[in-house]
Amino acid sequence: MRNLSISTPVPFKVVTIQDDFWSPYISLIRDVVVPYQWEALNDRVEGSEPSHAIQNFKIAAGLEKGDFHGMVFQDSDVAKWLEAVGYLLALAPDPELEKIADEMIDLIAKAQHSDGYLNTYFTLKEPEGRWKNLAECHELYCAGHLIEAAVAYYNATGKIKILDIACRLADCIHETFGVGEGKIKGYDGHQEIELALVKLYHATDNDQYLQLAKFFLDERGQSPHFYDVEYVNRNGQTHFPLLRMALDKSYSQSHLPIRMQETAEGHAVRLVYMCTGMADVAAETCDEQLLAACRTLWRNIVSKRMYITGAIGSMAYGEAFSLDYDLPSDTAYAETCASIGLIFFAHRMLQIEAKSEYADVLERALYNTVIAGMSQDGTHFFYVNPLEVWPDASGKNRNFDHVKHQRQRWFGCACCPPNISRLLASLGSYIYSVREETLYTHLYIGSQIELEFSDQKVQVIQHSELPWEGNVRFEFRMDQAFRFTFAMRLPSWCESADILINGIPYPINEDSLLDGYIHIDRQWDPKDIIHLVLPMKINHMKGNPLIRETVGKVALQRGPLVYCMEEADNGSHLHQLIIASDSNNHSYYLPKLLHGLQIIEVPAFRIREHSWGDQLYLAHVEDQLEQTTAYFIPYFAWANRGIGEMQVWVREQRF
Amino acid sequence: MRNLSISTPVPFKVVTIQDDFWSPYISLIRDVVVPYQWEALNDRVEGSEPSHAIQNFKIAAGLEKGDFHGMVFQDSDVAKWLEAVGYLLALAPDPELEKIADEMIDLIAKAQHSDGYLNTYFTLKEPEGRWKNLAECHELYCAGHLIEAAVAYYNATGKIKILDIACRLADCIHETFGVGEGKIKGYDGHQEIELALVKLYHATDNDQYLQLAKFFLDERGQSPHFYDVEYVNRNGQTHFPLLRMALDKSYSQSHLPIRMQETAEGHAVRLVYMCTGMADVAAETCDEQLLAACRTLWRNIVSKRMYITGAIGSMAYGEAFSLDYDLPSDTAYAETCASIGLIFFAHRMLQIEAKSEYADVLERALYNTVIAGMSQDGTHFFYVNPLEVWPDASGKNRNFDHVKHQRQRWFGCACCPPNISRLLASLGSYIYSVREETLYTHLYIGSQIELEFSDQKVQVIQHSELPWEGNVRFEFRMDQAFRFTFAMRLPSWCESADILINGIPYPINEDSLLDGYIHIDRQWDPKDIIHLVLPMKINHMKGNPLIRETVGKVALQRGPLVYCMEEADNGSHLHQLIIASDSNNHSYYLPKLLHGLQIIEVPAFRIREHSWGDQLYLAHVEDQLEQTTAYFIPYFAWANRGIGEMQVWVREQRF
Repeated sequence: MRNLSISTPVPFKVVTIQDDFWSPYISLIRDVVVPYQWEALNDRVEGSEPSHAIQNFKIAAGLEKGDFHGMVFQDSDVAKWLEAVGYLLALAPDPELEKIADEMIDLIAKAQHSDGYLNTYFTLKEPEGRWKNLAECHELYCAGHLIEAAVAYYNATGKIKILDIACRLADCIHETFGVGEGKIKGYDGHQEIELALVKLYHATDNDQYLQLAKFFLDERGQSPHFYDVEYVNRNGQTHFPLLRMALDKSYSQSHLPIRMQETAEGHAVRLVYMCTGMADVAAETCDEQLLAACRTLWRNIVSKRMYITGAIGSMAYGEAFSLDYDLPSDTAYAETCASIGLIFFAHRMLQIEAKSEYADVLERALYNTVIAGMSQDGTHFFYVNPLEVWPDASGKNRNFDHVKHQRQRWFGCACCPPNISRLLASLGSYIYSVREETLYTHLYIGSQIELEFSDQKVQVIQHSELPWEGNVRFEFRMDQAFRFTFAMRLPSWCESADILINGIPYPINEDSLLDGYIHIDRQWDPKDIIHLVLPMKINHMKGNPLIRETVGKVALQRGPLVYCMEEADNGSHLHQLIIASDSNNHSYYLPKLLHGLQIIEVPAFRIREHSWGDQLYLAHVEDQLEQTTAYFIPYFAWANRGIGEMQVWVREQRF
Repeated sequence: MRNLSISTPVPFKVVTIQDDFWSPYISLIRDVVVPYQWEALNDRVEGSEPSHAIQNFKIAAGLEKGDFHGMVFQDSDVAKWLEAVGYLLALAPDPELEKIADEMIDLIAKAQHSDGYLNTYFTLKEPEGRWKNLAECHELYCAGHLIEAAVAYYNATGKIKILDIACRLADCIHETFGVGEGKIKGYDGHQEIELALVKLYHATDNDQYLQLAKFFLDERGQSPHFYDVEYVNRNGQTHFPLLRMALDKSYSQSHLPIRMQETAEGHAVRLVYMCTGMADVAAETCDEQLLAACRTLWRNIVSKRMYITGAIGSMAYGEAFSLDYDLPSDTAYAETCASIGLIFFAHRMLQIEAKSEYADVLERALYNTVIAGMSQDGTHFFYVNPLEVWPDASGKNRNFDHVKHQRQRWFGCACCPPNISRLLASLGSYIYSVREETLYTHLYIGSQIELEFSDQKVQVIQHSELPWEGNVRFEFRMDQAFRFTFAMRLPSWCESADILINGIPYPINEDSLLDGYIHIDRQWDPKDIIHLVLPMKINHMKGNPLIRETVGKVALQRGPLVYCMEEADNGSHLHQLIIASDSNNHSYYLPKLLHGLQIIEVPAFRIREHSWGDQLYLAHVEDQLEQTTAYFIPYFAWANRGIGEMQVWVREQRF
């Protein structure tokens, strides 16, 4: 028995989502996003910058002539597409899609070198540069995505070819990196390989991959600094001269050995990918010190550096964290990918210790930033997810240059759209986990799961009305009654819940509530039904008074959804609105608004400027307040009705 | 008689400042700043980047060997020093200083080419590049500063040598630029030559200089665009590749012909220097259309794009204006030089039409941003003048990279310190003006002025307790009684004033109050004394509700001084303070605080974070308010007591 007792992840294949809210998203990924991405990867999307990603593979495979084009990490776009395809095929067969993927895998195989090396940029453009600029060139990052894709596709289809490619690549990396004579004692500028190698270890049971992941983690930030060593070795050649990637060590979290890092610094996506790998390795190797480092970084993110939308990364410079409690709404970076990485990290921590705070953050990021990142037609995406936009300032105040107020069709650096695909296509794996004799429910998403406890099979069917109403029903189906613990998360957004088991109230008390989960330990009968009612009050959320941006303001949250005001409903100059703190808010469902939304109405006042004329500053004037109503829609649905202002945090006052 | 009746500027030499507040500043300029700048120009300041400015002149003069070093506009630092010396010599003789200046002038003369051309950068570094990159290379800008220096020095000393250098340079420019065959139909990327040529016109009465100024103004922004033409002519050679100076036309206000510009765009210093030249030319050529363009740009600045401190320029990118009502406190650029340029513009407008709004803005910029730009010992300077600083964020949130929280000893681009010198050394010229039979007092600064009305001499002695108390006394000295109008500005910061003439109350009514000036038209007797009392209420200033930054907040202003809170008096987390709107503020003088200051105490509440622990967001919590007192000091005095937070705008609430 390991010292560190960890939950066994429920194999993903057995969770099927059937949910009014989420099923359409998954269909969108299957029917629109993944096909659209395939077109994009093949340079067939009109009006978009060509990706050239598949062309690069064809040229590297010797099938076509030409030069490499795109970012140094262009290969990873293909891998993320393939990973999403793997998850989709696990959900439902799709022979046509599988055929396309198999052909892509054949192409990837042809682009792989005989020694296992696989990277079209270095194959085509810098054959002498292989493994010489880890700080900047994403070589292991691309390998990591290929490995993740391979594991997903193998798990879905059982086909060994892509797993074999991944193993040969990982073996090549293993030959190249490590502490032994002649090996490179280094690591990639963008973390990703670490978590991927743990997935490969799970798929193959080959401990060498786990050890390699641990090596990469523990080398990071050691002295002498690897980036400096390789910089000298390659005579100062620099790939991105403007970004100072090799110089700014905290950008890639290599300013300190990872176990000594106490704050979330640098590029936000890198940080959460690293933390995910750390948690994976901590769990697998029973490394309590590494787990403590994970907890420290988690605590810093969620208690000091996270937006209420579950977004992270407070500034455009370096797409990075800035400092504790610095959470500006309008200049936020809040990258979609970073919230997806935060979900990965939360998911791993949840496997290690079933504490609701991990699932609370996971849910927050998922229901707000992640789905805000995609338009309702699945073809337009946000990379940056601000909490306040003032479109008039666009192009005029250049501090907002990174902020778009409309989702974009595709990106030159197309990391976010395929990340959304692979997350939503695998959403089922985030709903439940099992630890010994307890089945945990983390997310309230309509779904079916089949699993085994001590040779007993049980099927759990979840019906959920979230995020619009807090009604959830669980039905158990099994051959005979048996005893296990069913644990349901009590979300941070409700103080208590009502539970009925077969119509009979079940009291929630100190004994049953543990780490934020309501535990019901009993002999469950076939056809037992649990009704769970999570009250959905409109929560007026405040920020910690150390946050400068939110003082005097509130954000409305109902259930897991953070709300925002839009110009479409409230007119312009949203900053002039003040909601009443002691008011009677109410929410109601509008079936025709943006595919159906619960909106919130709040009595409010608007400060009017009409009496001011040309005056910019005046002494001793009373604000001219006009009574009005403020309308809020869920944040994820913003920017679907043309260009306009948007604001999450709103001033609140007692009138 | 001109159509456009303009005031005659009172010759500067006759105004002597004797003022408890301002005299020490002028002494500081004389005793510390100008000598310090001379050391800096001679590369004798330890620990500072060498200026090399004088060395460049020596090399260009053939007296030493070496290469040009410094910015392309390095010459202008010498010119601004010389201009300040001119003003100081006008105030009081200083043979030693005059000797140094004369030697510098000899050196400048030797660096001048036989055709009048004078610019050490092009002489030494790019002799073939003369007049080929006006968009970027500040050639006419440097010429303008040399001309301003020449006029100041000539006016002070009567010595012709530097004026002759300036005229030869201006003649060279006149030969080169214009509409005629073979002439360059262009203008400088940084406006300055325009206002300088009008000064040279005043000094020489040579109309060609006035016409040349008008030419430069009217060419700006015409089509085909001059920058594009010269860009092609020099085969795309670029001096500052990162700045896109030639490409971004609005950066240098050449996006439209100047008479068509309705908003203040681009680099703030360039804009106000341009407006100053426009007002000069409008007045001198009776150009009503040009004056209307001045008024339009003035109105846009002061009613939509100016900080309450009289600062302009809302963003670091391009040191520039952004858009209407965009006035962020913490990322402000608010360059010291830009406020000085705004004072120049206000001063010119005030000469054209005696409306108190010009003097109000002039006073606002002077008492707040300009003197905040210099430390109390005269050796440290702010280039950027934010209205809020959070030192912890420095170096961490890179949006604040341009903001320093301590004044710096010198700058590589040392434009601001010498600009402060030349403004304060010539401060006397901003106090009064004369228009027909009316003597206007714009600023309440202790001083003596001698002037003539219709062959009568009058001496006015002003005693002022500003900025600490609103008591002002005027004494008239003349040989015999005579009639004229004495007009005193009623500042925007007081609603009314009390006037006693020889102890007898003088009523202010609709007839006497015109355009913000109290006019007293009477037969003045020798030894007449006016007591003017300007009430100094503590004004709780609000921003126009269209300003996003200031909504729900106030800035305290007492007399002309805008106040701020500092961490030294209020502890950290200044954003947690809320002042009471209906409170009894009071102010008192602390003689030992920072050389003596009137401070303001306001009952306040502080939102405490203690009960929050590790929570970042909470539902339905009441703010924990702690009763306290907020202390405010004048904004100009901030950052003299170590590193700490500072905040001008503070939340205000009724409790």
